[in-house]
Amino acid sequence: MKQPKVAVIMGSDSDFPVVKKAIKVLKDMDIDVEARVISAHRTPDQAAEFAGKARENGFDVIIAAAGMAAHLPGVLAAYTTVPVIGIPIKGSVLDGMDALLSIVQMPPGIPVATVGIDGARNAGLLAAQILSLKYTHLVEKLEDFRSSMAEEVKKKDAKIGKEID
Amino acid sequence: MKQPKVAVIMGSDSDFPVVKKAIKVLKDMDIDVEARVISAHRTPDQAAEFAGKARENGFDVIIAAAGMAAHLPGVLAAYTTVPVIGIPIKGSVLDGMDALLSIVQMPPGIPVATVGIDGARNAGLLAAQILSLKYTHLVEKLEDFRSSMAEEVKKKDAKIGKEID
Amino acid sequence: MKQPKVAVIMGSDSDFPVVKKAIKVLKDMDIDVEARVISAHRTPDQAAEFAGKARENGFDVIIAAAGMAAHLPGVLAAYTTVPVIGIPIKGSVLDGMDALLSIVQMPPGIPVATVGIDGARNAGLLAAQILSLKYTHLVEKLEDFRSSMAEEVKKKDAKIGKEID
Amino acid sequence: MKQPKVAVIMGSDSDFPVVKKAIKVLKDMDIDVEARVISAHRTPDQAAEFAGKARENGFDVIIAAAGMAAHLPGVLAAYTTVPVIGIPIKGSVLDGMDALLSIVQMPPGIPVATVGIDGARNAGLLAAQILSLKYTHLVEKLEDFRSSMAEEVKKKDAKIGKEID
Amino acid sequence: MKQPKVAVIMGSDSDFPVVKKAIKVLKDMDIDVEARVISAHRTPDQAAEFAGKARENGFDVIIAAAGMAAHLPGVLAAYTTVPVIGIPIKGSVLDGMDALLSIVQMPPGIPVATVGIDGARNAGLLAAQILSLKYTHLVEKLEDFRSSMAEEVKKKDAKIGKEID
Amino acid sequence: MKQPKVAVIMGSDSDFPVVKKAIKVLKDMDIDVEARVISAHRTPDQAAEFAGKARENGFDVIIAAAGMAAHLPGVLAAYTTVPVIGIPIKGSVLDGMDALLSIVQMPPGIPVATVGIDGARNAGLLAAQILSLKYTHLVEKLEDFRSSMAEEVKKKDAKIGKEID
Amino acid sequence: MKQPKVAVIMGSDSDFPVVKKAIKVLKDMDIDVEARVISAHRTPDQAAEFAGKARENGFDVIIAAAGMAAHLPGVLAAYTTVPVIGIPIKGSVLDGMDALLSIVQMPPGIPVATVGIDGARNAGLLAAQILSLKYTHLVEKLEDFRSSMAEEVKKKDAKIGKEID
Amino acid sequence: MKQPKVAVIMGSDSDFPVVKKAIKVLKDMDIDVEARVISAHRTPDQAAEFAGKARENGFDVIIAAAGMAAHLPGVLAAYTTVPVIGIPIKGSVLDGMDALLSIVQMPPGIPVATVGIDGARNAGLLAAQILSLKYTHLVEKLEDFRSSMAEEVKKKDAKIGKEID
Repeated sequence: MKQPKVAVIMGSDSDFPVVKKAIKVLKDMDIDVEARVISAHRTPDQAAEFAGKARENGFDVIIAAAGMAAHLPGVLAAYTTVPVIGIPIKGSVLDGMDALLSIVQMPPGIPVATVGIDGARNAGLLAAQILSLKYTHLVEKLEDFRSSMAEEVKKKDAKIGKEID
Repeated sequence: MKQPKVAVIMGSDSDFPVVKKAIKVLKDMDIDVEARVISAHRTPDQAAEFAGKARENGFDVIIAAAGMAAHLPGVLAAYTTVPVIGIPIKGSVLDGMDALLSIVQMPPGIPVATVGIDGARNAGLLAAQILSLKYTHLVEKLEDFRSSMAEEVKKKDAKIGKEID
Repeated sequence: MKQPKVAVIMGSDSDFPVVKKAIKVLKDMDIDVEARVISAHRTPDQAAEFAGKARENGFDVIIAAAGMAAHLPGVLAAYTTVPVIGIPIKGSVLDGMDALLSIVQMPPGIPVATVGIDGARNAGLLAAQILSLKYTHLVEKLEDFRSSMAEEVKKKDAKIGKEID
Repeated sequence: MKQPKVAVIMGSDSDFPVVKKAIKVLKDMDIDVEARVISAHRTPDQAAEFAGKARENGFDVIIAAAGMAAHLPGVLAAYTTVPVIGIPIKGSVLDGMDALLSIVQMPPGIPVATVGIDGARNAGLLAAQILSLKYTHLVEKLEDFRSSMAEEVKKKDAKIGKEID
Repeated sequence: MKQPKVAVIMGSDSDFPVVKKAIKVLKDMDIDVEARVISAHRTPDQAAEFAGKARENGFDVIIAAAGMAAHLPGVLAAYTTVPVIGIPIKGSVLDGMDALLSIVQMPPGIPVATVGIDGARNAGLLAAQILSLKYTHLVEKLEDFRSSMAEEVKKKDAKIGKEID
Repeated sequence: MKQPKVAVIMGSDSDFPVVKKAIKVLKDMDIDVEARVISAHRTPDQAAEFAGKARENGFDVIIAAAGMAAHLPGVLAAYTTVPVIGIPIKGSVLDGMDALLSIVQMPPGIPVATVGIDGARNAGLLAAQILSLKYTHLVEKLEDFRSSMAEEVKKKDAKIGKEID
Repeated sequence: MKQPKVAVIMGSDSDFPVVKKAIKVLKDMDIDVEARVISAHRTPDQAAEFAGKARENGFDVIIAAAGMAAHLPGVLAAYTTVPVIGIPIKGSVLDGMDALLSIVQMPPGIPVATVGIDGARNAGLLAAQILSLKYTHLVEKLEDFRSSMAEEVKKKDAKIGKEID
Repeated sequence: MKQPKVAVIMGSDSDFPVVKKAIKVLKDMDIDVEARVISAHRTPDQAAEFAGKARENGFDVIIAAAGMAAHLPGVLAAYTTVPVIGIPIKGSVLDGMDALLSIVQMPPGIPVATVGIDGARNAGLLAAQILSLKYTHLVEKLEDFRSSMAEEVKKKDAKIGKEID
C-alpha cells in the first residue's frame, strides 16, 4: 500500500507562516507533504493542471490556503474529486471574513471542507482524520494526539487552582 | 470489505428539510446512511456516546447539522477522530451566520469540515469524496456526477443564447 | 470598425432574472450581446476557454454574475486582460454579502470591476461607459440616457409637492 | 448556611488574563471561587463530569469563558441546571463576534447568561447579584460597590470641568 | 418563605408575542409573574422607579425585552442589584443584531444576563435556574423539564430513522 | 418672525412611504414642509442648487432620505450649513446597513445628523427639537407629544397585567 | 440675548481624548461649553437630573459620547426635548459598531442625532449648525470654517500634482 | 491619436500612500496620470467641475479613492459618463467596510467600478485594461505584466518545495 500523501497549496508565499502549521501536523504523523505556491488568478493553468491530475499523482487530500477573495480552494475543487480542505487566511482588512465566505459558501455540487480563519493546524488534523479511513495506522496517532492535548489541559487545570490562591 | 457508512445527525428534526438533501446524495451513491436526531444540549449523553463509538460502529464519516449556537458538530468531533462535516443551518435570525461561526471557528485541535449555510448537498458530496479514498468505486460515481452537472450547465448555456434574442 | 460586443456570463440560469437587466441596457444601446451560462466550478474548462479567447473573439467587455462564493468573475479575469465586470447575486442567505466579498476583494494583479449586489443595470451601463472610449457614438447615447433619467426624477419631484398637500 | 461558591472555568489558560477580573470581583466579595481549565473539545469528559456534579458539589453559579466557536458555556449548561454565565473571549480574528454568537444564541431549552465580549468583570458582578437572592448579606456589598462606582464617576465629573478651562 | 417572583418587562406591547414564551415557562413552574410595559425612553421615570424598588417589592429576577437600540434592560439594571435578564427583540431591520449589541455590551459595573435574539423561552428558564438557588423546590421542576425535553428528542430520533427508509 | 420651515428631500419617490412619517410629524406641529425628489446622482445640479440656497430660501432644517450608497444627505450637507438630518432607507439587500454607513460615517468637517434605518418619524421629531431653539412655541408641542406617548405606554402597561392572567 | 451653550457629556473620562475635539470646535466658535462625566449606568440619577433640567438651565444642545452598549445619549434624550447629538466611541472590540447601533437605532419617539464613530469634531460642528438657527452670528463663522477647509484641500491639491512627477 | 490619460483623485492627501500604487502601475505602462486632491464634501464645486469636463479634457478613465462615507467616486460619476473606478480606503474603524458599501452600492443609473479595500494597484490595472480597448498597444504590456506575475509565482513555487524539507 502506498504512503498517505497530502498537497498543501498556498495562493501566495506570504501565507506560509500560517500554512506551515498544517505541514508540521502532517509531518509529525509521517504523512507525505508536497507544498506548492499556486495562484488561482496569477497561475490558473497550474491550478487546473495540478488539481486535474491530483488523484492520479497519488494525492489523497488537498489543503489550500488563500486570503481576500479566496478562490484557490474552490478552483482546485472544481478540477478534482479528491477532498479539498480550505483555509481562509486573515488579510490586512476584514479579519479574514472575506476569505471565509469566499471559501465556505461554495455553490451546490463542488464542496470545500472549510476550517476556521488561519486554522492551518486544524486543516492538517482534518486531513489526517480523513486519511485515517484508508491508512488505519493513523487512528492510533490521532488518538495519541488527542490524549496528549487532554493531558496538557489537565496539567494547566491542576496549575490554575494554585495560581488564584 | 465493508460498505461505506455515514451518520447524518441533526440537532432538531426541524433541520430535516435541509438535511435530507445530504441523505439523498449519499443514497444515490449507494452509501449506507444512518439518520439521527441528537441534540448537543438536550441529549448530550447521546451525542457523547454516539460519537465515542462511531468508529467502532463502522461509521466512516459523520455529518452534523445545527442552527443558532450550533455546537453539535464540534461536540461530536470532541469525542471521535472520525471526520465530522458540519452544516450550519439558517435560523429565524442572522441568516445562519451564528451557526456558521459556531461551527467553523473550532479551536485548534478539534477540526470540523464546514460547508456553506444550509449546504447539505455539498455535505453529502464531501462525505462521498472523503469515502472515495477508501471505497475507490466511488471515484467513478463522483466523476459521473460531475459530468452530469457539467452537461446540465451546457444545456442551459445552449438554451440561454436563444432566449435573449 | 467592428461593432461593440459584450459577453454576459452567469454562473447559473437562476441568475437570469437579475442579469437580463444588464442585457436590456446593452441592447437598448445597440451593443452586441452574447449571453452564456458558464460555471466556474461545474464547467471550469468552458470558463477558462471562453475567457482565454475573449479578446480574439472580439469581446470588448465581459460581465459576469454569480452568487454565494462567487468565483466566476475572478476566474474569467484570470484568463483575460479584457475588462471584467462582476455582479454579486443575492442568494438565499447573507443578502449577497458573500458574493460581494468574493468578487470585490480580488488579490493584487487581477482586478474585477464590481457593481452593487444584484446591480445588473449598472453593470450594463458601466460596460457602455467603458465601450464609449472606443465606440464614441455611445457617448451621446449615454448622455441621452442620463438626461432622460434626470427628466424622470424632475417629473417625480414636480408631482411630490402636490401629493403632500 | 454554606458559603456562596462559584466555579470559574476557562477553555484555555490563555483566557486567564481576562478571566481573572471575574475572580477578583468575587474574591473581593468573599465569595468562594474554584478556578478550572476545562476544554469542551479537548477534555469533554471533564466538562460533562464537572457540570453534572456542580450542584451536588455546592456550586451556586458557573462562570465559563471561551473564545472562537465558544462551546464551553453551552456544553456545561447542557449538564446542569445551575445558572451558567458565559464570557465570550476576543480571539485573534473577528473581535470576539464568533464567541459571542456561539454563546448567546443557545437554542431553546438550555440558556446561558451571556455578558459582553471580554466582560469578565461583569460576569463576576452578575454572579454576585444572582447569589444575593440566597446569600442576602451580598446585597449590601453590591450596593456599596455601586455607590463607590458612582462616587468615582462623580469625582471625575468634578475634575473634568476644570480640565477644559 | 415567600413565593418566587419575577418581573417581565417589555419596552413595547408589540414585544408581547415573543415575551409571552418567557411568561409561560415561569407560570408552568408556578413562579409569580408580573408583566409590565415600561419604556426606557418614553416612560423613563417608571423604569427608574420600578427597578429602584424591585428588591423591596419582592422581585427576585427581572426579565426585560426590547428591540432596536434596546436600552431597557441596561437602564433597569442601573437602578437595581436584582439580576436583570435581557431579551434582544428582532425588529424590522438588522435581525436583532442592534438589540443584541445594545444589551450584551454593557460597560463594566452593570451586568445584564443576555439570552439569544427573541430568546424569551430561555430567559424564562434562566430566571428559573437563578431562582432555584433560593427556592430549591425548583431544582426538581427544572430537572423534570430537562428530562421531558430529552425524551422529546429521543422520540424524534426513533422516528427519523424510519422516515428516511 | 417667520414660520419654521423644513425641506424633506428623498432620493427616489420609492422612499415616500417611509418619508411621509417625517412629514406627518412636522405637519402635526404646524411646521411648513417642502417635499422634494432630488437625486444626488441623477440630478446632482438640483441637489447642489437646492442646498446652496437653502438658508436664503428660509429653510431651517433639511431632512434627506436615501437608500443603498446613500450620498444624498452628505451631498446636500456639503453645500449648506443648515443642519441636515439623514434617514437611511432599507433597500432590497443588507437591511439598510449600506445606507446607514454611507450617511453616518461622514468625514470630519461636514456632519449629517443621522437617525435609525427607516427612522423617518424620529427625523421629523429631531427637526422639531432643533427648531424649538428658535421657535420656542414648539417646546410645549414637543412636551405634549412626549406626554401623550408616555400616556399611551401607561395604558398598555395597565392592560398587559390583565392579559397574562 | 443669552450666549449659545452646549453640554458635552461623556460616559467615562476615558472618552475625553475623543470628545475634546468637539469641545475645541465649539470653543473656537466662542460657544459656551460645559463638560461633564455622567454615566447612564453608574450615575443614572445624575443623567436624569441633568437632562431633565437642561432646557431651563440654558443648554441649547447636548452632545453625549459613549462606547459599547452606549445608552447615554438615548437616556439623556428620554428626559429632555433639547436636541441630543450622540457620538459612538470605538471600544476595545467591534470597532464601535456596538456603540453606533446602540445610539442610532433609537425607537420611534425619542431621536438622537448620531454622528460617525469617534466623530467628535462633526458633533461639535453639527451643534454649531443647529445653534446657527437661533444665534445667527454663527452662520458666518460656519461659512468661514467651510472656506478654510476648502482652501486647505485646494492647497493640498496644488501640491499633489508636483509630488507625483 | 492622443495619449491615454487617467485622473487619479483622492478625497484627502492622507489617502496618497495607498493611491500611489495605482499611479505607479499607470506610469509603468506609460499612461498619462493627473493626480488631484478633491473632496466631495469640502470642495464639491471642484468635484462637479472636474468630472463635468473630464471627457472634454481628454480623460479616458477616472480613479477615485475615499474612506468612511466615501461619496467621492459616486459624486464624480454623477457628473460624467467617463468610467469611474472607486477605491474604498480603510479608515480608523470598520476596516473600510463603510467605504466599500458607500462606493459599490450605487443606485441604478450611475455605476462605479469598485475594486477591493485599499485595492489601488488593481484600480490602476483595471484602468489599463479599460484603456486597452482603445489604446491597443496596452494589450501587450498587460500580457507582459501577467506573464511576469506568473513567473514570480512559479519561482516562489519552485522555492517553497525545498523550504519545507
